[in-house]
Amino acid sequence: MWGPRQPGQRWWQRAVRRRLPVLGWLPRYSLSCLRLDLTAGVTVGLTVVPQALAYAEVAGLPVQYGLYSSFVGCFVYCLLGTAKDVTLGPTAIMSLLVSSYAFHDPAYAVLLAFLSGCIQLAMGLLHLGFLLDFVSCPVIKGFTSAASITIGFNQVKNILGLQGIPRQFFLQVYETLRRIGEARILPVPKAHPRGCAFVTSPPPVFDDPRASLRGSSPATSHCRAGDAILGLSCLAALAGLRAMKSRLHPTASTEPLAARASVLLVRSCATARNALVVLAAGLVAYSFQLSGSQPLTLTGSVPCGLPPFRPPPFSKAVPNGTVPFGRMVQDMGAGLAVVPLVGVLETVAIAKAFASQNDYRIDANQELLAMGTANILGSFFSSYPITGSFGRTAVNAQTGVCTPMGGLVTGTLVLLSLAYLTSLFCYIPKAALAAVIISAVVPMFDARIFRTLWRVKRLDLIPLCVTFLLCFWEVQYGIMAGVLVSGILLLYSVARPPIKVLEQGVLLVQPGSSLHFPAADHLQDIIRDRALAASPPCSVILDCHHVSSIDYTAVVGLAELLQELHKHGISLVFCSLQDPVLRALLAADLEGFRHFPSWEEAARCSEAELGGSRAACIDSTGESSLLPAGLIQ
Amino acid sequence: MWGPRQPGQRWWQRAVRRRLPVLGWLPRYSLSCLRLDLTAGVTVGLTVVPQALAYAEVAGLPVQYGLYSSFVGCFVYCLLGTAKDVTLGPTAIMSLLVSSYAFHDPAYAVLLAFLSGCIQLAMGLLHLGFLLDFVSCPVIKGFTSAASITIGFNQVKNILGLQGIPRQFFLQVYETLRRIGEARILPVPKAHPRGCAFVTSPPPVFDDPRASLRGSSPATSHCRAGDAILGLSCLAALAGLRAMKSRLHPTASTEPLAARASVLLVRSCATARNALVVLAAGLVAYSFQLSGSQPLTLTGSVPCGLPPFRPPPFSKAVPNGTVPFGRMVQDMGAGLAVVPLVGVLETVAIAKAFASQNDYRIDANQELLAMGTANILGSFFSSYPITGSFGRTAVNAQTGVCTPMGGLVTGTLVLLSLAYLTSLFCYIPKAALAAVIISAVVPMFDARIFRTLWRVKRLDLIPLCVTFLLCFWEVQYGIMAGVLVSGILLLYSVARPPIKVLEQGVLLVQPGSSLHFPAADHLQDIIRDRALAASPPCSVILDCHHVSSIDYTAVVGLAELLQELHKHGISLVFCSLQDPVLRALLAADLEGFRHFPSWEEAARCSEAELGGSRAACIDSTGESSLLPAGLIQ
Repeated sequence: MWGPRQPGQRWWQRAVRRRLPVLGWLPRYSLSCLRLDLTAGVTVGLTVVPQALAYAEVAGLPVQYGLYSSFVGCFVYCLLGTAKDVTLGPTAIMSLLVSSYAFHDPAYAVLLAFLSGCIQLAMGLLHLGFLLDFVSCPVIKGFTSAASITIGFNQVKNILGLQGIPRQFFLQVYETLRRIGEARILPVPKAHPRGCAFVTSPPPVFDDPRASLRGSSPATSHCRAGDAILGLSCLAALAGLRAMKSRLHPTASTEPLAARASVLLVRSCATARNALVVLAAGLVAYSFQLSGSQPLTLTGSVPCGLPPFRPPPFSKAVPNGTVPFGRMVQDMGAGLAVVPLVGVLETVAIAKAFASQNDYRIDANQELLAMGTANILGSFFSSYPITGSFGRTAVNAQTGVCTPMGGLVTGTLVLLSLAYLTSLFCYIPKAALAAVIISAVVPMFDARIFRTLWRVKRLDLIPLCVTFLLCFWEVQYGIMAGVLVSGILLLYSVARPPIKVLEQGVLLVQPGSSLHFPAADHLQDIIRDRALAASPPCSVILDCHHVSSIDYTAVVGLAELLQELHKHGISLVFCSLQDPVLRALLAADLEGFRHFPSWEEAARCSEAELGGSRAACIDSTGESSLLPAGLIQ
Repeated sequence: MWGPRQPGQRWWQRAVRRRLPVLGWLPRYSLSCLRLDLTAGVTVGLTVVPQALAYAEVAGLPVQYGLYSSFVGCFVYCLLGTAKDVTLGPTAIMSLLVSSYAFHDPAYAVLLAFLSGCIQLAMGLLHLGFLLDFVSCPVIKGFTSAASITIGFNQVKNILGLQGIPRQFFLQVYETLRRIGEARILPVPKAHPRGCAFVTSPPPVFDDPRASLRGSSPATSHCRAGDAILGLSCLAALAGLRAMKSRLHPTASTEPLAARASVLLVRSCATARNALVVLAAGLVAYSFQLSGSQPLTLTGSVPCGLPPFRPPPFSKAVPNGTVPFGRMVQDMGAGLAVVPLVGVLETVAIAKAFASQNDYRIDANQELLAMGTANILGSFFSSYPITGSFGRTAVNAQTGVCTPMGGLVTGTLVLLSLAYLTSLFCYIPKAALAAVIISAVVPMFDARIFRTLWRVKRLDLIPLCVTFLLCFWEVQYGIMAGVLVSGILLLYSVARPPIKVLEQGVLLVQPGSSLHFPAADHLQDIIRDRALAASPPCSVILDCHHVSSIDYTAVVGLAELLQELHKHGISLVFCSLQDPVLRALLAADLEGFRHFPSWEEAARCSEAELGGSRAACIDSTGESSLLPAGLIQ
């Protein structure tokens, strides 16, 4: 948390402050903070409105649901969040997951938000935040890279004005590529007299049949040149503004005012580029509409006003009866595990990244509580599951947000849009929203990670590739398989620790890490094989220098080994035992257990036992390198 | 394997010898081996016949199924086994599992044997033997201890002649204790004119309804004094003979012949004690039968002859239709995982124990193949799942078996019993078989393990207790929970490695083991907190002496830490890097990465940077103890 900890507080004061981080910063809130927070809040608001409309499209929901999901998170995080930069709301990845598990049905999406919130809240209360440690970097990278491709490609059809493209990624790629050649200007239908109602999204009520958005009539399944031209122009504009922003550095105050003002203008435009591009595209569409012919696919009518406050739908009316709660839960299946986990993962990852950058600490469990509360409360305002947004959090941080108060401003802006601007949203072309999404997800793709892992740790390529490839099939399988594979690799490294073996008259065996039960047999096998293979069989010194702990199974294994080697007249002595290991071995009362502080003493003892016959084999070769060569395993 | 490896063989010869271990020992088979194998085979045979009858009772199957399960394993293991001592056949634990998953129905039991065999064979072919490493000693101990209590107590009702006792362990204990007081001599029914058919087991065909053996008429649910007296006498006799055997040592050849002969006689009696006790009890029952009154519960008629050779039942006829294969598989559920795994676990554990004792090696994957083949072939002879028997393997080893040829003798003896002796088995009192089982499972209970673990490694008490307690509820839950808990403890130890922190002007941080992804954040948090908490913030030396490997996530964590500390003007240097770790860190191209061969050099460098202001804090305190004190975590 970014507020300093105040000493002398009672435990319950600390507990309340911990659970309500707002109490930490609000008393010290200043006017200068307010100015910065206002600027940041407005900037993020100008980003979130077009993105919310676009992500609702990704989630397969009517566009207004994007906005419904964009304000509660801002307000809740302002009270409960531990990171000043994070903004909660709809994101590309979460929208992709919602499209998988909510069947393009608002009722399912809202219930999913409620249940995910409950699970996140429970995880936070049970302090299960540490579970996130088991999602490794390669899994996260594989997931975000695959998601950026999936989400980005999913929008290509909107840019090209293609319709009737299947949802499955590989079929989508095949169909899109096949139809690109068919691009031509279609005879477009005459504009509807009542404005823009001719290309409508489904009505925003809870009875959208599951398959309604999946197909379309074959008559419209051709590339529409108007959409393509607009979409590509928007993409180019966004890319240009983005590049401009990263090239243009703030000017020094010594430069002339005009120069400073123009730089400031360009930077402001670049920061609010999403809003500007969508605005421009909307104006183009509006002028076409006025001229009577419309070559663009529009968003369609968006119902006016704020969402009603009502509990999430615990059952759903369908034409021939009611889908009960149990059935809805069953339908969502694995989504109830994947959505809350990915949500938390995304938020915590982003919060950690910015906390590290801006030098404050976050509390993973408190983040879980904030996320959970935001999703539960959001579901009462028809929100679908939300999480921390990387892009908007970056905008927030760059604009210099000072406290989570910025979220309050953003949320208010979204509410104002919902109240007064929805009648204008119908003119926004889908191609422009697609361009906004594509330019938001492109930076998420990290192509260098493959090369980096190849250089740093090749084994980590396995979870990366497994996650990356399976995420194209189904996102949840990708993540689960990635976590599983990295867990298996982890267990494997514990089960087969590096063991150095050096044969110099005596056998020096040095395990490279602690001895746990899966490694017990392996160590026993190696020592037995090597000790008996030598002719004559040679004594063994087990150097436990790197062994910081040992469990009962490993102790039993060593006891068996001692007995077995003893039967062959071979001695096994221990050296460099750390305290906990020595205590465990002494407590186990091993028969014939002997130990020495260093391997030199152990070797001298072994020599003495052999009557000096092989005394020349071992000499003290120095202190620092215990086993200078002979790395066998 | 106990045959020496012959050099100069081609790879396919080695592969064949590996898969058919019989080829290793048969060519060198001698007459002296034959004599020893014959003795051992007959002795094991005299043990297996009464045990088989008794274990079939535990499995809730008609008694002949115990014998049907006792010969195929002997023959198959003779060809494919890698341990000379192991004998496959029905065991107490496997019978307990079969009673859970086969619903006391031979059709299910035989199909379970077939499917378990297929799974074991597949595991062997896929070389999955290493999975057994993940079952730790505490889990095995907890399981066997609980199983010995469950199985033993399950037989108390037979010893006391109680009937109508429920199957669930806790209810069983309650009912048994409640009814012990009711013991009285009941008016027994007049002996049936046609011998012993008055207390029959269900007919040995595949249409035994599931619940037929679970209850009995309330009229007979009282303690029968005849059974109780006989059962307790048998138990006393078995315990006495067992004690005698362990006390009586072989006599020296200098002693008089009479003494040597008597000692040999007593030892032989003690070894074949199961057969003798059952024989004696049978004679008692037979004389009661002749006298016309029968105070004992008898085994009942056993169908004569060898089992038919036929495929296992892939469907099952019931009064109102057929239970299809899919439904049968579904009914057995988790049993299809637990039965094959426990089977392999038991065999491999026993094989390893005796291999270590008698100084040869076993091959876990070949054991899997042998088990699988034995179960598949066995299912064609109406066998239920079999595994290695600890008790009989011990008998085999003690009698001095020389090669797996002993199994051939045992199997033949079982076949002879089935062909010619089944008509006599009906006179065996159930109480006598119960005594045989109880005396076999009592040594499996290891009460000292709790005390041992308390002394050696207290954390291991958790998987032990979890397994032990849950096994009373359901065996499979106990084992699965135990494996899970020990896996979690293992992952926890990887996620939270011991980290020594010593503050002496600079901060010396020494992780106690390798750095894997779950530990990345933890290490980062510790270093950051401690480095920034000091006033003024102090430089950090990360001593990677014990770190033998590092993964990408940990590298990323260190990179972030470097940046963050750099922002505070704190330096982080590395020392004592092992080669793979150094390579990984260099490949990752960390900004500001510096490393030194030892912590002394790193400390000197830090001092120089600080302008010698805190030079006195660090002095070279010796070589061996890097961090002599200040164990903080």
